[in-house]
Amino acid sequence: MKGFFKVQTPAQLYQKLNCFKPLSSEEVPLEESLHRVLAEDVTSPMNLPEFPRSTVDGFAVKAKDTYGASEKNPALLQIVGEIPMGKVSEITLKDGEAIKIATGGMVPEGADAVEMVEYTGWVDGQTIHAFKTLSPLENVIQAGEDIKAGEVVLRKGRLIRPQEVGLLAGIGRTTIRVFRRPKVGIISSGDEIVPVDEKPNSGEVRDINRYTIVSMVRESGGIPFFFGIAKDRFDDLKDKIETGLNEMDMVVITGGSSVGTLDLVGEVLQSFPKTEVLGHGLSIRPGKPTLLAGVQGKPFLGLPGHPVSAMVIFYLFGKTILNILSGWSDEMKPQGRRKVRAGRNIPSVAGREDYVRVTLEEKDGILWAYPIFGKSGAIAHLTHADGLLRIDMNEEGLEEGEEAEAILL
Amino acid sequence: MKGFFKVQTPAQLYQKLNCFKPLSSEEVPLEESLHRVLAEDVTSPMNLPEFPRSTVDGFAVKAKDTYGASEKNPALLQIVGEIPMGKVSEITLKDGEAIKIATGGMVPEGADAVEMVEYTGWVDGQTIHAFKTLSPLENVIQAGEDIKAGEVVLRKGRLIRPQEVGLLAGIGRTTIRVFRRPKVGIISSGDEIVPVDEKPNSGEVRDINRYTIVSMVRESGGIPFFFGIAKDRFDDLKDKIETGLNEMDMVVITGGSSVGTLDLVGEVLQSFPKTEVLGHGLSIRPGKPTLLAGVQGKPFLGLPGHPVSAMVIFYLFGKTILNILSGWSDEMKPQGRRKVRAGRNIPSVAGREDYVRVTLEEKDGILWAYPIFGKSGAIAHLTHADGLLRIDMNEEGLEEGEEAEAILL
Repeated sequence: MKGFFKVQTPAQLYQKLNCFKPLSSEEVPLEESLHRVLAEDVTSPMNLPEFPRSTVDGFAVKAKDTYGASEKNPALLQIVGEIPMGKVSEITLKDGEAIKIATGGMVPEGADAVEMVEYTGWVDGQTIHAFKTLSPLENVIQAGEDIKAGEVVLRKGRLIRPQEVGLLAGIGRTTIRVFRRPKVGIISSGDEIVPVDEKPNSGEVRDINRYTIVSMVRESGGIPFFFGIAKDRFDDLKDKIETGLNEMDMVVITGGSSVGTLDLVGEVLQSFPKTEVLGHGLSIRPGKPTLLAGVQGKPFLGLPGHPVSAMVIFYLFGKTILNILSGWSDEMKPQGRRKVRAGRNIPSVAGREDYVRVTLEEKDGILWAYPIFGKSGAIAHLTHADGLLRIDMNEEGLEEGEEAEAILL
Repeated sequence: MKGFFKVQTPAQLYQKLNCFKPLSSEEVPLEESLHRVLAEDVTSPMNLPEFPRSTVDGFAVKAKDTYGASEKNPALLQIVGEIPMGKVSEITLKDGEAIKIATGGMVPEGADAVEMVEYTGWVDGQTIHAFKTLSPLENVIQAGEDIKAGEVVLRKGRLIRPQEVGLLAGIGRTTIRVFRRPKVGIISSGDEIVPVDEKPNSGEVRDINRYTIVSMVRESGGIPFFFGIAKDRFDDLKDKIETGLNEMDMVVITGGSSVGTLDLVGEVLQSFPKTEVLGHGLSIRPGKPTLLAGVQGKPFLGLPGHPVSAMVIFYLFGKTILNILSGWSDEMKPQGRRKVRAGRNIPSVAGREDYVRVTLEEKDGILWAYPIFGKSGAIAHLTHADGLLRIDMNEEGLEEGEEAEAILL
């Protein structure tokens, strides 16, 4: 059973994640593309804007007619009409003329700038004063200035946010090719675990992990399927894991009694063809017994049974694997991690990465992290936490005021 | 038309948002509670854990039997069995005895501490050496140590994250009372706007706002419904707005030709009973013509037609209003906003808040903001942006290196 019990650093295990590849792609309607990942390079079939548009409310003019204009010496211009929104103006502007235009309106033939309404004054019903000298193209966005026809506007691997949806609408895309959302099979295990709607007998506990893992898979863009609670027995584990690997893109199991169960899970995995154990045992706290394998190319993640440990490891590895399967190629956005300072001395043991539950408090632009105490690190503590503070493998804790990085929860 | 055209600061308008109230509540299954907001104080019906549990793998003992134990002078203990997971051990531990236990196992009667397996050694099949002195309750989490029966564990107004779902599972909740998700009616308007699947004629543009607003409503926990594109005419606007206000919890309109349309929209609102215009005109860029009203207590938000302006104002006001309707009482989490430094000089005009599209780059723990150039602030530019940099009303721009706040996109 190669790889077993050779404790690795989290960084070593991270490097092995590139053996997993993005899933296949599918075409979805534009309105369902939010938070999906592009599986194509998107090329614009057109210029945007398609015609020269005013960026202000005011009067379209020839810039040269305003040369030298000022508060004291305004230019006098003849009003020849108003640009109707959504229509092509049939007017061609001549020297000394101006035409009323709203933001977004089509700048007519002959005009090359727009004087903002704030810098004009009516002389009579047909004449205005323009108080500001304009340069050519001032307050005008030219055809193709935003996007040129044939230009690649969004690349494969891009996460689709509201603004990307808007851009795709702007160039007339009604369907988009995106990577499939990963289907994730979730198994709870442990003889002491009972479903949430059962009253546990003494010695038993309710299945918390089912709900936290399902929720985190959903937040990571995956589609979770729960495969039930496996007893700590080879046959029951094998049955559920095999079904999961056949039907899903990834399988996550939480091991009721931590090390013991994940050993048994490791044996089950070895009974399948083409299993490669990438890691079993991490120099990290919490989460030491973590097991990661590829079975016929599909990721299999074995998490400790303790709910907090399971969540920490899922934040670190599960989300990253789901990002890879989803085809997301962007670098990690600054949303997820923040530089913080330790609000007090926080002890740690060198030789493993430590993830400490903290509350975060902003003072004068600095984010201070205060550890949450509690022997167990139970789920109740995690609901008080705003983040997980990372203490490096080479540090023996942090001193008050020292900088470190936190993952925001 | 009270309130019209009196330009307000964003801060003044913010203060008026407290006239809106959370929606009614509903009961949902636990598995659908993620990202909803609690509408009840949740009390635990039980202790968690319900029984004393070991926090390590090792041997349950009487602490006093290890007093004085050390590497050189280990305590000798008699093994009397193993705690089965999920079962009540029938053994009562006597002086000088130890029993094998896994993490999470139930500490048996008579035992009050657990010696970690790392600090033990087998002497023979029935006897171990314990090398470390334990204090009472060491490595044991007592019944009720995480949560006491009757304790309020989560308060009304709390956003439900994966860890809250886990806690609710842990105390056996299968359904949860949460606030209703706001239904949001979305109207596009403007004579120049055509649906995305139509080829625009010259002077026309595709309806980008429909897709960006729908996406942002979804991201904010609302349920978006699109009511179509209204022409810039009183009757058409009134028809769609009236239906929206009757059927939805909130209505958002984007005005094709900015100021002009929102004036007409203002007139439509005044034709309804119990309309209170909270603001029309903001000292902000982009987004000056913004209109906010309460119609029979329901929020109505009129956004400029320019897609970038509409998005900026929705980020600032739309999301906040949806948070209020959703009953979310938490303070704004640090996720959404970051302290950054200007990567170069960024000019601005005093007297209005300026939101500049920026890319963000982290160097040595400092997040640098670089403005994105482009006359139009078009949607394509927003897809390159990581954030919106806020320049205060009282500043004439930022100097390179100066600190400011950015909203992350």
